[in-house]
Amino acid sequence: MSKRPGQLHLNAFLMGVGHHEAAWRLPESDPYASWDVEHYRNLARIAERGRLDSLFLADSPGLMGDPGRRPGGRLEPTVLLTALAGVTERIGLIATASTSYNEPYNLARRFASLDHVSGGRAGWNIVTTAGADAARNFGLDDTPLHKERYERADEFLEVSTKLWDSWTDDAIVADKAAGVHADSAKVRRIEHAGRFFRVAGPLNVPRSPQGHPLLVQAGSSHNGKAFAARWAEAVFTAQQTLAEAQAFYADLKKRAAAHGRDPDGIKILPGIVPVIGDTEAEAEELDRELDRLISPEFAKRQLAQQFRLDPDALDLDAPLPENLPSEDEIEGAKSRYTLIVDLARREKLTVRQLIGRLGGGRGHRTFTGTPVQVADAIEEWFDDGAADGFNIMPPVLPSGLEVFVDKVVPILQERGRFRTDYTGTTLRDHYGLPRPADSLTTALAVRQSA
Amino acid sequence: MSKRPGQLHLNAFLMGVGHHEAAWRLPESDPYASWDVEHYRNLARIAERGRLDSLFLADSPGLMGDPGRRPGGRLEPTVLLTALAGVTERIGLIATASTSYNEPYNLARRFASLDHVSGGRAGWNIVTTAGADAARNFGLDDTPLHKERYERADEFLEVSTKLWDSWTDDAIVADKAAGVHADSAKVRRIEHAGRFFRVAGPLNVPRSPQGHPLLVQAGSSHNGKAFAARWAEAVFTAQQTLAEAQAFYADLKKRAAAHGRDPDGIKILPGIVPVIGDTEAEAEELDRELDRLISPEFAKRQLAQQFRLDPDALDLDAPLPENLPSEDEIEGAKSRYTLIVDLARREKLTVRQLIGRLGGGRGHRTFTGTPVQVADAIEEWFDDGAADGFNIMPPVLPSGLEVFVDKVVPILQERGRFRTDYTGTTLRDHYGLPRPADSLTTALAVRQSA
Repeated sequence: MSKRPGQLHLNAFLMGVGHHEAAWRLPESDPYASWDVEHYRNLARIAERGRLDSLFLADSPGLMGDPGRRPGGRLEPTVLLTALAGVTERIGLIATASTSYNEPYNLARRFASLDHVSGGRAGWNIVTTAGADAARNFGLDDTPLHKERYERADEFLEVSTKLWDSWTDDAIVADKAAGVHADSAKVRRIEHAGRFFRVAGPLNVPRSPQGHPLLVQAGSSHNGKAFAARWAEAVFTAQQTLAEAQAFYADLKKRAAAHGRDPDGIKILPGIVPVIGDTEAEAEELDRELDRLISPEFAKRQLAQQFRLDPDALDLDAPLPENLPSEDEIEGAKSRYTLIVDLARREKLTVRQLIGRLGGGRGHRTFTGTPVQVADAIEEWFDDGAADGFNIMPPVLPSGLEVFVDKVVPILQERGRFRTDYTGTTLRDHYGLPRPADSLTTALAVRQSA
Repeated sequence: MSKRPGQLHLNAFLMGVGHHEAAWRLPESDPYASWDVEHYRNLARIAERGRLDSLFLADSPGLMGDPGRRPGGRLEPTVLLTALAGVTERIGLIATASTSYNEPYNLARRFASLDHVSGGRAGWNIVTTAGADAARNFGLDDTPLHKERYERADEFLEVSTKLWDSWTDDAIVADKAAGVHADSAKVRRIEHAGRFFRVAGPLNVPRSPQGHPLLVQAGSSHNGKAFAARWAEAVFTAQQTLAEAQAFYADLKKRAAAHGRDPDGIKILPGIVPVIGDTEAEAEELDRELDRLISPEFAKRQLAQQFRLDPDALDLDAPLPENLPSEDEIEGAKSRYTLIVDLARREKLTVRQLIGRLGGGRGHRTFTGTPVQVADAIEEWFDDGAADGFNIMPPVLPSGLEVFVDKVVPILQERGRFRTDYTGTTLRDHYGLPRPADSLTTALAVRQSA
């Protein structure tokens, strides 16, 4: 492999006491930590110590799966990240929020507020939210159709970007003598009227430090990629093999270019679950210990639900059945579904083995090894055009983040692959992404010159 | 007046650089402070130094009025209060949020999250949101009818309280050996199906430190009082005279009792704008300086809008016109409308004088005097059955909160009327209100004994 110039990006994906579903059962884990802000403050400080680009919280507005199996539910991400903004100074803060179950005015405003409160560190991971558990909390019987969810998401982003630009950067003049606080001509209604939304505006929050939050996306279906190519500035993705990751990377950069965008303006970050030990044997022992703690009956029930099968149709010690639905028939998380089926077939896994792999990273790539091996794996994908950086998903928290920051990051820094200190103050600075232009000023200038 | 036993409650109502609309024009004011989290952190620390019960932020999901006139818009309150939770330890945090323009699942969850993150200090000021500016950000042409807004609010609270109780207090068993995180029987769907909402639940956040946030209400119309009597644990209200305040107090306590509630379980806090000087003359000079800074043309336009009149129908130096609409014809903030008309007629104010009074407190009572006079005024209403405490609305911030905390609070403490230190840790503790019973545990016990 040839060395690629520049540095890679690292995001810490925080999830309760770890991404491995059985992490809470380890002796070291506090099973109540998922709702303890101190736990997350500690994680945020560790990630900032490692100079990581950002923290990220996934989300769904519903209780997913059986709360008996693992810590169920989550604190609302914009609230939790606001709390973390207070104990950090530079690291970015990316919250997941759904375009299917929010109103654009409320959500655009909340992210603008987080961007103000954090001094320009807000990011929004835009999701359309699969699953009946969420749908049934919002008056629906089941998830809206996949295509319709993405159409709504597109319009949601149109409304949001208009709202974020409804104040020019210089709208506030604060002329005490004249008694004029803002120049009213520089605060404009948006008067959006579309298929899903009618929103007059303006936003009731002035333009924020980053102009608007960093836009992040994480779905890899056909609709998901089309949406990412248009809107996303960073993409989280689940990729199991180098070849698949390269193909995804090339495809998405090309799609962004087709939208007239700079391909470097969309950063691609595959997930990686690093199971780290000082020796390979130690890492493998942690891996085995975690898998041993998975309750296969709970997991089988969830897998069956994802496949729209009766749990009895799955035999723990046999491969997946042949006659599974195609991706087209799935209205949920389409690309994740296909990834799971492909993984099981490619590696000829039994249901029990598949459960072990999914329990660790829910379809994301698990990499087990020493700090040097993890650093090598990260460099390889970066150099080989499969990633601009990585979404780090520690199997156990805080220990898995601590070992990554204290043992893997220094290797990447030593090799010149990762920053040794922050050079900017905003989330966009860290990812090397420009602050979006203030479209209202542009529009007003055009009108004036016409 | 006879001395009433017990202590009174004090809430700090934070608003940008002060409640007086011209506060931003004072030499001391930072006109950008409304969007600066450091400004609010400073205010929160001052209020906690004074051992106040709580902080409160008003809100509307729209830009109200002309942003030329005064700092327009607001950071989203749950975000801002989460930031303030991080720099305080005991003081309560009350955020306004609208039942008309939110989904109950999202909002119930956000308040539960704030309650977790703050260690039991969350309160929700429940509003139904008047005004076309907000309505037009949510697909409507104008505010929904007043009655319908309150019917939706009632059902919104039914759903929210069911969601907050969808986990029992002891649902998490965290049995690592058995691999059981929560007792699934103690996490229940709510399956709510009503006129406005269908919500399956359960919430994806376990029951919070206070059981649920303190429920606060602030409308004094007929529908508002009926709602408060059923749901509110604290009520903010605008009352101009002792007699009116006493009548309101007696009426609301009686209404709560009629719902089978303990009248002491609903705390009534009229607003007061204390304009404080070391001497009476100094206080009056601050009052005059602030009123001199109001731009009457901006204010006249807003008043005309509230009265549904053409601005030209208002003469600055004449009384209000005779033929104003009745409260029944107003679909906005009904009780505030009547209060303003009554105030102008009772005190025979010209439009310019009325604008001065409204500019200071938007219909709330302004009291100008020395620290001793302010403390006397507070004691009088408390002793005379007009208030359980006060909603303190400093005309200028931070200076107006500083002088209240440093000069008025010590007088009230010395007289035994206010705490000298916190005795509890939650917002409910400060107001002397019980933690609500966990209704799911009660329901499960009934089922078991049947």
